[in-house]
Amino acid sequence: MPDTEIKFIADGVCAPLGFFAGGLHCGVKTKNPDKKDVAIIASSVPCRAAGVFTKNEVVSDAVLLTKKRLENGELQAVIVNSGIANVCAEGGYAAAAREGRAAAVALGLPETSVAVASTGVIGQKLNIEAIERGVPALAKLLSRSAEGSDGASAAIMTTDTVKKEYAVELNIGGAAVRIGGIAKGSGMIHPNMGTMLSFITTDAAISHSALVSALHHAADYSFNRISVDGDTSTNDTCLVLANGLAENAELAEGSPEYFAFEGALTALCRRLAIDLASDGEGATHLITCRVSGAKTEEDAVALAKSVISSSLLKAAVFGRDANWGRILCAMGYAGVKFNVAEVSVDFLSDAGRISVCRNGCGLDFDETLAKEVLSEHDIVIEITAGRGSASAECWGCDLTYDYVKINGDYRS
Amino acid sequence: MPDTEIKFIADGVCAPLGFFAGGLHCGVKTKNPDKKDVAIIASSVPCRAAGVFTKNEVVSDAVLLTKKRLENGELQAVIVNSGIANVCAEGGYAAAAREGRAAAVALGLPETSVAVASTGVIGQKLNIEAIERGVPALAKLLSRSAEGSDGASAAIMTTDTVKKEYAVELNIGGAAVRIGGIAKGSGMIHPNMGTMLSFITTDAAISHSALVSALHHAADYSFNRISVDGDTSTNDTCLVLANGLAENAELAEGSPEYFAFEGALTALCRRLAIDLASDGEGATHLITCRVSGAKTEEDAVALAKSVISSSLLKAAVFGRDANWGRILCAMGYAGVKFNVAEVSVDFLSDAGRISVCRNGCGLDFDETLAKEVLSEHDIVIEITAGRGSASAECWGCDLTYDYVKINGDYRS
Repeated sequence: MPDTEIKFIADGVCAPLGFFAGGLHCGVKTKNPDKKDVAIIASSVPCRAAGVFTKNEVVSDAVLLTKKRLENGELQAVIVNSGIANVCAEGGYAAAAREGRAAAVALGLPETSVAVASTGVIGQKLNIEAIERGVPALAKLLSRSAEGSDGASAAIMTTDTVKKEYAVELNIGGAAVRIGGIAKGSGMIHPNMGTMLSFITTDAAISHSALVSALHHAADYSFNRISVDGDTSTNDTCLVLANGLAENAELAEGSPEYFAFEGALTALCRRLAIDLASDGEGATHLITCRVSGAKTEEDAVALAKSVISSSLLKAAVFGRDANWGRILCAMGYAGVKFNVAEVSVDFLSDAGRISVCRNGCGLDFDETLAKEVLSEHDIVIEITAGRGSASAECWGCDLTYDYVKINGDYRS
Repeated sequence: MPDTEIKFIADGVCAPLGFFAGGLHCGVKTKNPDKKDVAIIASSVPCRAAGVFTKNEVVSDAVLLTKKRLENGELQAVIVNSGIANVCAEGGYAAAAREGRAAAVALGLPETSVAVASTGVIGQKLNIEAIERGVPALAKLLSRSAEGSDGASAAIMTTDTVKKEYAVELNIGGAAVRIGGIAKGSGMIHPNMGTMLSFITTDAAISHSALVSALHHAADYSFNRISVDGDTSTNDTCLVLANGLAENAELAEGSPEYFAFEGALTALCRRLAIDLASDGEGATHLITCRVSGAKTEEDAVALAKSVISSSLLKAAVFGRDANWGRILCAMGYAGVKFNVAEVSVDFLSDAGRISVCRNGCGLDFDETLAKEVLSEHDIVIEITAGRGSASAECWGCDLTYDYVKINGDYRS
């Protein structure tokens, strides 16, 4: 395998050497005894670790605790519960600490080496006793196999309909290095540094500062470019644990090997992020918006994100209506200056391509073909925003009856 | 009537002396021959005029033309079409000019004294010939009665289900002054200076600068505090025409009489804005969010607007689910600093009040009563954001199946 090539492989977060994982129903999701609700991912040796978190002012106690645990840049395990977000509930921080302690005790690790993450309903008290009761059994069934990663990725799901897990392998200076990741998130998805939850493992040897840089880069080009409903969650967390067991020469920022690692991590995160958008609550379409011709990459991202966040555009895609005027409208309130007379818009999918706007004006187009193009699950909106050289891609989904149904009836 | 009292009266934009109005089907809405699609509002004498407009980068040619017409601060009439927004369509500016000219000719006015507004589908060519054919008949049926205002308010509707028109009377230094207004807008409502469309008439004598100030104040406290779907339209326009026929002493900025007028104008605009939110596409609830205890009024508005704009909160209200965690979440990404431990949240309506959060933590509450409170059409969310002294109210509506239905199938 050449140095720059990355290969997608099996086994998710258990693909890198030395990582084991699993999930179990412990009783946080009281109404769904058949659904796993606690996951643990752990390494056989201490790891360098980095995280990106929500920028919401209202923050889960799990996020506060994990930020503290990350201060020395090292972790060895993470415990995650779904069902209750552990935010705005009395005694939340103490409950998060107990959750971490339960995992530490069961794994025989120092308490400070365990991160905690939560996702679910805001404002309800975490059933910490149920977690404490369940964790010893969970710790015993952790495995280094595909089943371990599968179990963990199932246990972190809320309204998700599919598991999101990937792994990649690349060659760094002769050493095979693996990166694995899982993620969850379906509603309240408009990440701002991190996503609902994502956990990434790697056996790369990498300096702490390089790991932090690589994670920020990867999150910026993946999780920070998707939206399901414009709601930035209180619990967004993306953690990476690097245990060095691949025995490559330690990666330092700025080296060619570092950029290979960063590229692979970004590719992995993009797959996870696209899966999150595609599995958006109630979604029937994945919408990819590609903007080119922008003045800066920041402008391109702002324009693309505004388009994929527009309720009106999302409803139009659900209705298979090539109502491109809503795209221009959403670009117009993105906070970016551009010349409307230079804008062009196409819709494309496996069923074909339809050009709907050139030089800021509508084109006559074949409505029947447009319906066919928009009947595919994966829709691309291709926009030229002007004569600039910057471009970006963002991902979202359509707005459907089921989004309303799911969210009119989530707590109960 | 004491000087500070304002009285709501009948006849909408025709309530002030010297204004006549009407609406007619001219053929812009080709598929709905029974729906009026062109309105004219005119004064018997020249008026001082002011306007606030969308801040979208993509702007209707009607907006561009009307901004030009407002440069000298005078207007005598406005022609409005619904059905096509006249934006991103070839020859749009020429079509807007022809639309204004048709009205000017039919009314015997100079072309420069006529403003033009459009609303409807983006990217389609305006059927200007149909408007030109219809305007002479429309000009003949304009009236100074309630029917005139009714006809105009009907003709500017798109997906609106009810007409929005109000008029108020107040006493200024012994002279009775009237202000009338109509508005439309149901989707693509997230105004940023102005709303979809609103036209206000008054017989007050008022300096141009005072009229501009009063309109900006009124729009800030009304149209700029509502949201249906977060989509700022390309056509937002709010115009006020003041013809001076009330013969009050000319209002100058900063005088007590000016503030009385400003207050009345603001009260009128709030009624129109609340009607817009209440008639949001597919809405089954009007949601009023009252934030107090904020550090600044700007903070209070940002918090309230974030709450009423949250798709998740809107879907929860549709489902009559007192899922207050989504309120805290939306406050958290409003871009405002606050102390979560000082936040309290209540839901109230004619069916009662339910306290759901105190000191940032959830309270046990009666879920049956909560369902009853949220079963009313008008729901109030009362938030204390901290220990500050600033407060604000914003208005929105719920997110329903019908919003998705209407917008999955608007063009066709």
